[in-house]
Amino acid sequence: MNEQVSAALVLIGNEILSGRTQDANLKYIAESLGAVGIVLLEARVIPDAQDTIVSTLRELKTRFDYVFTTGGIGPTHDDITSQCVAIAVDQPLELHPVAFKNMRAHFQKRSVDFNEARQRMAKTPRGATLIESAASIAPGYIADNIIVMAGVPKIMQHMLTDVIPTLKHGRITISRQLHTNLPEGVLAQPLSDLQARYPQVGIGSYPQTVKEGFHVILVTRSTDAKALDQLDNELRDMVTAVGGQHDSQTRPMVTS
Amino acid sequence: MNEQVSAALVLIGNEILSGRTQDANLKYIAESLGAVGIVLLEARVIPDAQDTIVSTLRELKTRFDYVFTTGGIGPTHDDITSQCVAIAVDQPLELHPVAFKNMRAHFQKRSVDFNEARQRMAKTPRGATLIESAASIAPGYIADNIIVMAGVPKIMQHMLTDVIPTLKHGRITISRQLHTNLPEGVLAQPLSDLQARYPQVGIGSYPQTVKEGFHVILVTRSTDAKALDQLDNELRDMVTAVGGQHDSQTRPMVTS
Repeated sequence: MNEQVSAALVLIGNEILSGRTQDANLKYIAESLGAVGIVLLEARVIPDAQDTIVSTLRELKTRFDYVFTTGGIGPTHDDITSQCVAIAVDQPLELHPVAFKNMRAHFQKRSVDFNEARQRMAKTPRGATLIESAASIAPGYIADNIIVMAGVPKIMQHMLTDVIPTLKHGRITISRQLHTNLPEGVLAQPLSDLQARYPQVGIGSYPQTVKEGFHVILVTRSTDAKALDQLDNELRDMVTAVGGQHDSQTRPMVTS
Repeated sequence: MNEQVSAALVLIGNEILSGRTQDANLKYIAESLGAVGIVLLEARVIPDAQDTIVSTLRELKTRFDYVFTTGGIGPTHDDITSQCVAIAVDQPLELHPVAFKNMRAHFQKRSVDFNEARQRMAKTPRGATLIESAASIAPGYIADNIIVMAGVPKIMQHMLTDVIPTLKHGRITISRQLHTNLPEGVLAQPLSDLQARYPQVGIGSYPQTVKEGFHVILVTRSTDAKALDQLDNELRDMVTAVGGQHDSQTRPMVTS
């Protein structure tokens, strides 16, 4: 068991940066990785531009255990992820024999022309490992420590489900939250003192606009469940001591 | 009028990376900037970690006209954005006299203790320009070309509205979209030919899962309205020529 396995996520595509579409992948990927102890430490949204994709992948692949990408593996001219990954891992881009065979059979069976554009989707950097996924005929794959997935959420989700069991997992970070009716200005000093005493726990303070003004949600995260329990009790006592109320009910959150 | 004004966005905070909260700021900021010709070219989500924040800001501030940040300007121990911006712009972090005066008056009026934690929110890098915003007593500000805003969406939106008129604007990119019932494998080659003939237009192809399988949305983006009109006609003709149907109705999109 690895203490911590780290990951970065690269969302490739102009459509999120232009504001045309709301990203629907980051949260899902973060939660899925977190559930097996792979910690997402950075996410980037970058355009369909070869220089940017290559330099981003080169930088992140040395800094993190895994780099996940979404988007840009379809058959059209703006799908340039695979050629960029090939450059980043310093391998030629070539037809993957298994992917090619599967795709040819798939299209033949449906009497669909396996044309040049569709064959492009069978290209991977040399030595890549396919992610088998029934959700899409165009396979995702792993090249070095880069995991290449589709951008369409449903297909991405199938690929992620398929690939996660093949990756190394780490210790799982547990998270608790406590809602309070106090403003951050009152909580700040006692929170800072508690954070100093619990260095193994990350304490986050998230103000949320509610009808009455602001509430604050205190989130604690750690791989150490015992420390979380102790801190949870101390947080409740602290909130009461500074004149507030709390509850630990989990509510849906929308603010950042 | 500047031809193109570029921007990067840095979303600071552990809560998006952990998957606990869905980002609610990127799309709003991208659309708001796009409306005045400021083009968002990269977005990053990074944790509340000083080294990462400083190195990210230092890199992006040299690459783009503006760098926008959200999050980490509250009074608690995990709010470290301002100290990081100060390092990135090479200025001391100090009490901003106007912010301090406004905040002191605000809290005195409400008989609320203007304690040390709250005073922290009045600190900016030396020489920063405040963003006046009625939505929050803790001001956002501009330091060099870095625009520092709150993470809570409602407050961020007020700050963005206030700051945008003070920034340089560029030529506005216009966007059109055309829905088709064709798969990308059929569209790929003619699209590639059209893209080669319209280098001043970005053509994006976005498959969307629908009940019947996949539809494709063709998105064109350019500052050249005339070229967009011409291309739009050619795209319709092309879709018809390869046996498909199209419409140009704008529909809400959720996929990436």
